[in-house]
Amino acid sequence: MTTAPGAGPADEPTRLREIVARVFAGQAGWTETLGGPGSAVTLTAGADAQDDCAVLHMDGPLDIVVGSDYVRGARFYLFEEGLLDEYDVGWYLTAANFSDVAAMGAAPVALLSVVRYPKDMPDETFKRVLEGIRDGCHAVGALNVGGDIGGAERLILSATALGALPSGKALLRSGATEGEIVCVTGPTGTAGAALAYFRSVTGRGTLPEEDEAALLRPWRRAAARCAAGRVLAESGVVTACIDTSDGLKGALEGIAQSSAVGIRIRRSALPVPPVVTRVAAVTGDDEVALVFGDSVDFELLFTLPAPDEARLRAAFADASMSFHTIGRVVEQAEGLTLEQGGGQLVELPGTAWRHVEPVTGA
Amino acid sequence: MTTAPGAGPADEPTRLREIVARVFAGQAGWTETLGGPGSAVTLTAGADAQDDCAVLHMDGPLDIVVGSDYVRGARFYLFEEGLLDEYDVGWYLTAANFSDVAAMGAAPVALLSVVRYPKDMPDETFKRVLEGIRDGCHAVGALNVGGDIGGAERLILSATALGALPSGKALLRSGATEGEIVCVTGPTGTAGAALAYFRSVTGRGTLPEEDEAALLRPWRRAAARCAAGRVLAESGVVTACIDTSDGLKGALEGIAQSSAVGIRIRRSALPVPPVVTRVAAVTGDDEVALVFGDSVDFELLFTLPAPDEARLRAAFADASMSFHTIGRVVEQAEGLTLEQGGGQLVELPGTAWRHVEPVTGA
Repeated sequence: MTTAPGAGPADEPTRLREIVARVFAGQAGWTETLGGPGSAVTLTAGADAQDDCAVLHMDGPLDIVVGSDYVRGARFYLFEEGLLDEYDVGWYLTAANFSDVAAMGAAPVALLSVVRYPKDMPDETFKRVLEGIRDGCHAVGALNVGGDIGGAERLILSATALGALPSGKALLRSGATEGEIVCVTGPTGTAGAALAYFRSVTGRGTLPEEDEAALLRPWRRAAARCAAGRVLAESGVVTACIDTSDGLKGALEGIAQSSAVGIRIRRSALPVPPVVTRVAAVTGDDEVALVFGDSVDFELLFTLPAPDEARLRAAFADASMSFHTIGRVVEQAEGLTLEQGGGQLVELPGTAWRHVEPVTGA
Repeated sequence: MTTAPGAGPADEPTRLREIVARVFAGQAGWTETLGGPGSAVTLTAGADAQDDCAVLHMDGPLDIVVGSDYVRGARFYLFEEGLLDEYDVGWYLTAANFSDVAAMGAAPVALLSVVRYPKDMPDETFKRVLEGIRDGCHAVGALNVGGDIGGAERLILSATALGALPSGKALLRSGATEGEIVCVTGPTGTAGAALAYFRSVTGRGTLPEEDEAALLRPWRRAAARCAAGRVLAESGVVTACIDTSDGLKGALEGIAQSSAVGIRIRRSALPVPPVVTRVAAVTGDDEVALVFGDSVDFELLFTLPAPDEARLRAAFADASMSFHTIGRVVEQAEGLTLEQGGGQLVELPGTAWRHVEPVTGA
């Protein structure tokens, strides 16, 4: 502990580093053999809780990935404002959980959902939550296989998603090396821009209806990038992967920290959704800060050797998908930087969800 | 829906039957093939969310079981009263989740824990929650492999447990048939008696210190019966299994409903913990009602053909364990009954957690 006894509580990144990591230290390499030879389960990732999911290697052709996500209070802002309904929130819970499975490159298999609701919630409303969960599962080809349903003093939503993939193919955050390219499956910032816009007193009603609909889309029908994740894992060339559920800056920090590298993003290569530009004009935010900031767009950020880019791009095209190459892995001492049009490097704008300090050491 | 539109919310069993079961109908038999032949995942239990866990058959020698449990507000009563601390509650979360894995006959593998805590919780307290989770995992030979940790307006604990077992060996609730014997791994009622005792105004302080410690033990160091579950699954003779986390009556109802049978319990065969008898004397409760009632003792209730009892008993003895044979599976029309000393049959006493109506039809 770096805090003195009796001091106030540490912030979240400090707690993760100083408490969570230490309490669960020493778990790596765990294996259990069930029922004799040929039936071992080995934990190959997740002992340190640093990736999106844990990976369990099962004897046989498949590995299992598994991760849990609780839908936070703050994420409910648009719901409490009446801009999202119970169906949307159920769907969102599902997408948030399968996004972690997508980031590991696994195929979505099953969701367990914890739905605790206030006693006075009407049946029809409760049913809409479940329908959102069901349809969110179906959208990625997975099933809801149970969980825990019952009463609570308010609506509490949490879930666990399982995925499976051929043994040894899981994508981690830790494999990026200097010189590789950094790519993202789609533009980021729209979900965060929606919050900035609908929260601003002057904003709401300023932009045309179709813009407001576009801002709500990533919240109402959030799409986990499972198909893209599977192509990334099958390609065999991706060295690190993470989803952007903590924002693009948070995702870059995640790979930089786990891989012990720096990352340089080119401003000219960064996709900026036009609606984000229009929101920035209304709210006075910096559009690039919105693109990097705390925006839950569920895209995938990944790294690979530059010579493999064309082959991966072809595999994406075969599946009617594409990606953006936005920067390059550099040495760790450089940290995370943005290369402006004129070539000068500045610190990345935007606030990552966890407010983690810039990575300066191992 | 059996309720009229605009009517008040249905109770929990009605919601489970009328809403949850219908929204997720039609999922059985789902299979996904990943990466070609020999890599299929099939959902073999859990589509209807009726067992403790879902079962995923993986190509290869192993199946995965997975289930989620949220620690309910009411379960925190002893914690709020200062009789349990944060370490105990973390441990309890773990035991509650692995009890579901035990009920399927699987070996515990991993826990994902959702720990959301109020911003002002001191680091030391937060650490104690995690240590309880860690040690609860170690007690059953499993690992904490992640989850979701962060802020909330109050302490919220939820988790998902994974287990694994040889393919096709998972124990379900649905296989009991008429004539089989009904057994339980240990006496029930102590956890519920603790609540009755500490909640009663006159109770606390009446019984000796060692009795009060015995009452708190199932709450402070709840033990999932994982070793017993594995012996049950490996025996190949058990036809149905469930844990007693909703109380013994709730467990009997679970097997009766899923297997479409009735069950007759012999009063003389029912183990009654002496401390439960002493609590009943203090609180004025019926001791048999405490044994059957809403008591989270995490024992396993199971059925098997009578001729296999001796063999199973020997397998338990080899592992330094035993079980109680408490009754017999009867035809469904008889429902759930208690056979008194004189041979007369009465309705089962006690209130099951879910307040489910007696099973009277398919």
